[in-house]
Amino acid sequence: MTPQPNPQAGAAVKAADRAHVFHSWSAQELIDPLAVAGAEGSYFWDYEGKRYLDLSSGLVYTNIGYQHPKVVAAIQEQAAKLTTFAPAFAVEARSEAARLIAERTPGDLDKIFFTNGGADAVEHAVRMARLHTGRPKVLSAYRSYHGGTQQAINLTGDPRRWASDSGTAGAVHFWAPFLYRSRFYAETEEQECARALEHLETTIAFEGPGTVAAIILETIPGTAGIMMPPAGYLAGVREICDKYGIVFVLDEVMAGFGRTGTWFAADLYDVVPDLMTFAKGVNSGYVPLGGVAISGRIAETFAERPYPGGLTYSGHPLACAAAVATINVMEEEGIVEHAARLGAEVVEPALRELAERHPSVGDVRGTGVFWALELVKNRETREPLVPYNATGQAATPMNAFAASAKSHGVWPFVNMNRTHVVPPCNVSEAELKEGLAALDTALSVADEYTE
Amino acid sequence: MTPQPNPQAGAAVKAADRAHVFHSWSAQELIDPLAVAGAEGSYFWDYEGKRYLDLSSGLVYTNIGYQHPKVVAAIQEQAAKLTTFAPAFAVEARSEAARLIAERTPGDLDKIFFTNGGADAVEHAVRMARLHTGRPKVLSAYRSYHGGTQQAINLTGDPRRWASDSGTAGAVHFWAPFLYRSRFYAETEEQECARALEHLETTIAFEGPGTVAAIILETIPGTAGIMMPPAGYLAGVREICDKYGIVFVLDEVMAGFGRTGTWFAADLYDVVPDLMTFAKGVNSGYVPLGGVAISGRIAETFAERPYPGGLTYSGHPLACAAAVATINVMEEEGIVEHAARLGAEVVEPALRELAERHPSVGDVRGTGVFWALELVKNRETREPLVPYNATGQAATPMNAFAASAKSHGVWPFVNMNRTHVVPPCNVSEAELKEGLAALDTALSVADEYTE
Repeated sequence: MTPQPNPQAGAAVKAADRAHVFHSWSAQELIDPLAVAGAEGSYFWDYEGKRYLDLSSGLVYTNIGYQHPKVVAAIQEQAAKLTTFAPAFAVEARSEAARLIAERTPGDLDKIFFTNGGADAVEHAVRMARLHTGRPKVLSAYRSYHGGTQQAINLTGDPRRWASDSGTAGAVHFWAPFLYRSRFYAETEEQECARALEHLETTIAFEGPGTVAAIILETIPGTAGIMMPPAGYLAGVREICDKYGIVFVLDEVMAGFGRTGTWFAADLYDVVPDLMTFAKGVNSGYVPLGGVAISGRIAETFAERPYPGGLTYSGHPLACAAAVATINVMEEEGIVEHAARLGAEVVEPALRELAERHPSVGDVRGTGVFWALELVKNRETREPLVPYNATGQAATPMNAFAASAKSHGVWPFVNMNRTHVVPPCNVSEAELKEGLAALDTALSVADEYTE
Repeated sequence: MTPQPNPQAGAAVKAADRAHVFHSWSAQELIDPLAVAGAEGSYFWDYEGKRYLDLSSGLVYTNIGYQHPKVVAAIQEQAAKLTTFAPAFAVEARSEAARLIAERTPGDLDKIFFTNGGADAVEHAVRMARLHTGRPKVLSAYRSYHGGTQQAINLTGDPRRWASDSGTAGAVHFWAPFLYRSRFYAETEEQECARALEHLETTIAFEGPGTVAAIILETIPGTAGIMMPPAGYLAGVREICDKYGIVFVLDEVMAGFGRTGTWFAADLYDVVPDLMTFAKGVNSGYVPLGGVAISGRIAETFAERPYPGGLTYSGHPLACAAAVATINVMEEEGIVEHAARLGAEVVEPALRELAERHPSVGDVRGTGVFWALELVKNRETREPLVPYNATGQAATPMNAFAASAKSHGVWPFVNMNRTHVVPPCNVSEAELKEGLAALDTALSVADEYTE
């Protein structure tokens, strides 16, 4: 855990990266990726020996932190035993992972279809919904992210969709509730909730209820801003789905597996979808894995009619063994309860206190270790600190904020005009306070851009 | 390597599977998945202690067989070091895997975008082609498979596409050359090649050359039947692409990494595509991994303009470490050369000899350890032994063939009226001969259904 500087090795890693690695979501010649030498728990370090507290959990997926020894050991054991096997067979790690997941998912979501990640989980959930209903359209929310493959990106409601926003028919976007930036001219959560439900039901009426296969929602939207749905909203969507025979899909790729201080965000709202997608936290991304939890009703559709979908690595034994170990570690170490306690006793009070002192903080929202600070130029107008989807010069205030945090050894999660506090679910209270102190300093930088 | 029977453990694995695992491409209540206890090299075994020689390499992906000790050790070492890290950073295993792949891909395919598997590799290749050209359509072949996500399945040219064949605009199918079942009334390979190229160019003319972003082809189609393209076809497609400014994508998910007795099937035809997709053999599927190899010209498009695509596990360190070890093992042990020699000296002569003796064998084709036997009712009419996409009673002859092979301890690859001989690239000559002997017996069963 004491990083040894080795700049020469770092330079070689960087050189090969620049020569041969094509990076996600990037202009390849305008990026300068940090070469990372190692990681443990809530920290990672570079080849200069500089250490960072990871307030972003990678891309909000290392829910048990880096290199948990029990999960590393389980991967090593499974590698020695049976690292891979084709999906048509029954394999111990696959069976056990499915059982452990099914035991934790809400209601009767008892069958697990394994994928490689969140995007293909969404692809398959949508296919199941279309075939179950025989209908073409899928409704999803603006301010959402559902993955990078064609169907998943078309359902996405953030700017990452734009460049791929052709080629898939049937994706219809609506507005989900978000009182801080209400699209419904609402003044209370109750009003926002009622109007959002009315908006959804009217959208369905005008799209044609008989054409809508599914409504897909992140239970709590993640990268789009951690907007906690108001009480009653998800129950209301469930009712609308039942009324029109629409499949209700909850996307828990980011919110699931402990991040909200519960196993699934759906548990907070006591709602049971027909299909639930997961990835990331299921095994903290130690091995690529995602999946769809399937209700009895949908599984029945494919009891005697073949489900027309699959992938070579479905139920990959190494990935499943990592999931088994991760879930067991989360139970044994009380990680979900720890995240709930940290959220209520440490993060929320600290963020509300920061909001009082920093004029750049417009809104604080979240639960567990899943929090967003919305930064604004002006608290009255709520004008974002940087414009929607800003790049270049326009993004300077957020870049300055991030640079400050990094200079103090904290790697922040930044998206548009927001920073998210999304550390591993087992981050210690002391580590968290170190991170919050760096955010305090960085917010002073952001404050300079307020009006 | 000596399997110990443990039927009780097998029953538990099976029970949890039936309760909780939703399987690919299946009617869930009509399947009876074999519980697999272990695997090594070219063999796997069940909980009864019955051993099978795997002539299918899983789903044609375990190119170095099961549990190669050097790759298992590399996975264990990387797990201990850094099992996962987010894609925006430079990481040693990621850099090294990209370098080793780029050094082996044809021409200037020197940048590697990593995905989780073959389907998302195709999704991203198509996105790159559309953004590079600004055009919407993608042409692909009937008799092809490109993956299970929405865009990839719509480009697929086999019946697995049908249930998902809506929702994606821009997929246009054409006929690739296949003399044995020519769509062009050709009598020689030369004629088939010339007419297939004329068909492709005419299709482009009628679709509108300015609307076509890409042509995607499996260099040698895999599950669709291992149809070796005639000399000159791929070079002709390359010329057509250059003439109309169309991006040429070769899908080497199944054909790549040694299966054809060369690193890539493209090497056999001396053709360089603009984009090449890979997965499976890159690390024998020991950890889920796929990717797109990108030419200089396409990479340049995204030098200063962000590439709008990504995924959480892009360049996953554990998966990349498995790729590094796999490629090094393939070099050290001469596995690619071994596959070439086996194909020329053992498989081809043996299959041609089987074809002489068995009236059910209509055609033999392939290279390396990538061979298809096409089974027919009648050699003159070439009527397939089972109808296209047969199920239930209609599929009986192929089911009887497969059951015979399994009863002799050989797990065959069967698709429609074909069996493929696709063992690991490092299968031994003795193992291969054991497999061929079982096929000989099973073909006698198939012969009973000929007319």
